[in-house]
Amino acid sequence: MTAPILSLADRMADIRPFHVMELLRRARELEAQGRDIIHMEIGEPDFASPQPVIEAATRFLARGDVHYTPALGITPLREAIARFYQDRFGADVSPERIVVTPGASGALMLALAATTNPGDTWLLPDPTYPSNRHLVRAFEGVARAVPVSADSAYQPTVAAVEAAWQTTTRGLVVASPANPTGTLLDLTQIDALRRCVHARGGHLIVDEIYQGLTYGVEASTALERMDDVFVVNSFSKYFGMTGWRLGWLVAPEGYAREIERLAQHFFISASTIAQQAALAAFSPACLEILEARRQAFAERRNTLLPALRELGFTVAAEPQGAFYIYSDISALSDDSEALARRLIEEAGVAATPGIDFGDNRPQQHLRFAYTTGQHRLEEAVERIRRALV
Amino acid sequence: MTAPILSLADRMADIRPFHVMELLRRARELEAQGRDIIHMEIGEPDFASPQPVIEAATRFLARGDVHYTPALGITPLREAIARFYQDRFGADVSPERIVVTPGASGALMLALAATTNPGDTWLLPDPTYPSNRHLVRAFEGVARAVPVSADSAYQPTVAAVEAAWQTTTRGLVVASPANPTGTLLDLTQIDALRRCVHARGGHLIVDEIYQGLTYGVEASTALERMDDVFVVNSFSKYFGMTGWRLGWLVAPEGYAREIERLAQHFFISASTIAQQAALAAFSPACLEILEARRQAFAERRNTLLPALRELGFTVAAEPQGAFYIYSDISALSDDSEALARRLIEEAGVAATPGIDFGDNRPQQHLRFAYTTGQHRLEEAVERIRRALV
Repeated sequence: MTAPILSLADRMADIRPFHVMELLRRARELEAQGRDIIHMEIGEPDFASPQPVIEAATRFLARGDVHYTPALGITPLREAIARFYQDRFGADVSPERIVVTPGASGALMLALAATTNPGDTWLLPDPTYPSNRHLVRAFEGVARAVPVSADSAYQPTVAAVEAAWQTTTRGLVVASPANPTGTLLDLTQIDALRRCVHARGGHLIVDEIYQGLTYGVEASTALERMDDVFVVNSFSKYFGMTGWRLGWLVAPEGYAREIERLAQHFFISASTIAQQAALAAFSPACLEILEARRQAFAERRNTLLPALRELGFTVAAEPQGAFYIYSDISALSDDSEALARRLIEEAGVAATPGIDFGDNRPQQHLRFAYTTGQHRLEEAVERIRRALV
Repeated sequence: MTAPILSLADRMADIRPFHVMELLRRARELEAQGRDIIHMEIGEPDFASPQPVIEAATRFLARGDVHYTPALGITPLREAIARFYQDRFGADVSPERIVVTPGASGALMLALAATTNPGDTWLLPDPTYPSNRHLVRAFEGVARAVPVSADSAYQPTVAAVEAAWQTTTRGLVVASPANPTGTLLDLTQIDALRRCVHARGGHLIVDEIYQGLTYGVEASTALERMDDVFVVNSFSKYFGMTGWRLGWLVAPEGYAREIERLAQHFFISASTIAQQAALAAFSPACLEILEARRQAFAERRNTLLPALRELGFTVAAEPQGAFYIYSDISALSDDSEALARRLIEEAGVAATPGIDFGDNRPQQHLRFAYTTGQHRLEEAVERIRRALV
C-alpha cells in the first residue's frame, strides 16, 4: 500500500519554476567542462556582504545566544529601520509599523495572506518579478497581468489600472525600481496609483526591494508621501545581504499587530543572526561601502547600456535602478529562449529570457544583469558581438 | 483619501495569537520591576548554540560569501542529513527527497501548500502545536481536531482517525515526540496510521521536530519503516539552533521537484549561514555535546515530573520526549488561565495554559517546559508549592 503518486493541490499546476534555473544548470555543465561562462542572469550582487555586517554577526555569534526573537523582529532593528527612513528620506515611520521578515518574500507573503480572500484578484504589471503572482496564487488569489510597455517605462498607468479593475480586484502591486526593467515610478505617479486603488477600496503594495540602487536619480520611498500602503523592502540588494534572508514590511497603521499573528505561525521569527548583523548595515562605515558599490553598479550600467544598444538590442525605456537591462531583441531574433541558448553555447554568456517575467511578449526580451565586474561585462559584450556576426 | 481601515482577509478571523505571549509580556513587566521570573513557558532550549556550529558559522562568515543557495538547500547539507538518517537510524533516505527550509514552519508550509485544496480537511490531534492548524487555514484548508486524551498517550488512534475521516479529508498530521504532551508514537503505531490514511487516499505528515530528545526510549524516525510520508524536522530543538531558523522536509519520491518550485517563490532559499553552520551539527564533537544536553533534559524531567505530581498536578500519560510536561490541573483549579496568572503573580513562575494547544479541555491543562536549569526548576517547584497552599 503506497501513498497516491503526486497527489498535489490544484495550485501546483499554476506554480511555474524559474526558467533561468535550466539555463543555470547548463551553465554549470559547461563550466564543469572547462568553459568560462559570464553570468548575466543572476539577480544578486556579486559583492561579498559588507565587512561591518560580517563583523557584527561574528561578534554576536561569539556570545552563542542565538535564540528566537519576537515575531515582528528585535526592537533595535525595527527602530534602526525607522531611523533610516527618517535620516535618508525624511519619512516619519513608526517602528510599530515595521515587520522584520525572512527576506522580502516573507514580507510579501504576509501582506498577501493578510488581505487576500480566495478569488480576489491582484493586478501585477507584466513583465514583473515572477514570484509575486505565484504568492498570490498560493493564497488562492488570482494574479491578473497588466501588460506594460516601454511607452510607460514598463510601469502601470492609472488608466491601465482603472481599465483592469473589477469587482473582485483586491489591489495592485508595483515595484520601483522594478525587476526586470530597472525603471522607476516617481512619488507623484505612486500617489496617483494609490488614489486610484484606494478610491476602489483596494490595497497598494509598493515593492522597494531595489531601493537605494538608482543611477542619476535620488533614491526615494513611497513612505515620504503616504502611510496607508504596504511597502516591501529587503536587506538583499542595496545592503548586499542576499544569503542572510532578511527583509521587512511596512504596514499601514493597525495592520502590524494583525500580521504579527501570521508571522508567529509562518516563521516564528526571522534569523536572529541576520537581525543582529543588520543593525550594522545602517552604520556610516557600511553606508559608505554601499555607496561605493552603487557607483560601481552605475559605471557598469553606463558601460553596458550603450554597448547593448550598439549590438542591436533595443532598450526603449531608460533603466535607472536595480541592476538589470531589459532589452528588446526583435532586431536580432524572434525567439529569446533560442537566443539565450545560443549566447550561452556560442558566447559563454548567460542572460535571462523574458519567459521568466510573464506572458507579455516574452519571446522578444532578454534581461541582462550587471552583477558581474566591469571587465567581465566588457568581455561579455565582445563575445556577444562575435556570436551575433 | 485613506485606505480602508483593517480590510483583512477572512482567514485572519481564524488566526489566533500565541496566548502565552500575553503572559510573557506580563513576565517582562514584572522583571522590569525587579521580580525574578522562572520561565517554564518557553518552547526552546536554554542552551547556547553548540560551539562547533558557532565555529563553522564564524569560519564561513570570514569568507564573506553569503549568497543565495539553491532553493532545496546546499547539496552537502542535504547529503549530511541523509547520512545522519543512515548512521543513526539505519534509514535509507535519498538526499533528493530532502528539502532544506527556514525552520520546520517552512517545511510544514511547503507540504501543506503543495497538497491542500481550498476546503480540504486535515486531521490534527488536539492538543497540538497551534501553528499547524493556522498553516492549514492559511492555505484555505480546514483543520479538524481529533481530540486525544491520556488514554492514548495524547496520540490519535486508528479508530479515531477512521471515525473522523470524511470525503473532504486530505490527510493527518501527527507528532512524535509531541508538543505539548511529550508523548511518542512507536513505528508500529505510525505504520498503522499510515495504512489507514493511505487506504483513504490521504497524506500522512509526521512531525519529528523533537527527534533525538527522548528519555528512556531510543530516538526513531518514521523513515526507518516507510518512505511514502512527509517528515518534518528541525535544527531548532535537538540541535539547539532555534534562532538560526533552519529545518527540513523529507518528501515522498517525486514530490521534492514539485516542492522546489514553491520553495523558490516562498523563500528563494534558507539562510546560507545557517546551512553552512548546520554541516557541523552532525560532527562527532557536536553530537557529543547534544547527547550531554539530552541527559541534562532527562535529569530535569526526572526531577520535575514527580515533583509536579506531588504538588497535585496529574500527568496521566508519561512524557517521554521533547521538553514538556502537560499536566491536568483539575485537582487544583478549574481555570488554567487563572492558575497561570496566579502562578506568575504569586510564585514568579511562567507556564503555558492549555488554550494555546486547542479546544480540548484547555482550562484543565498547563504545560510546563523544562527549558531552564535544574536548580531553577527546583526553585520553581518550591515557589509553586508555597503559592498553592
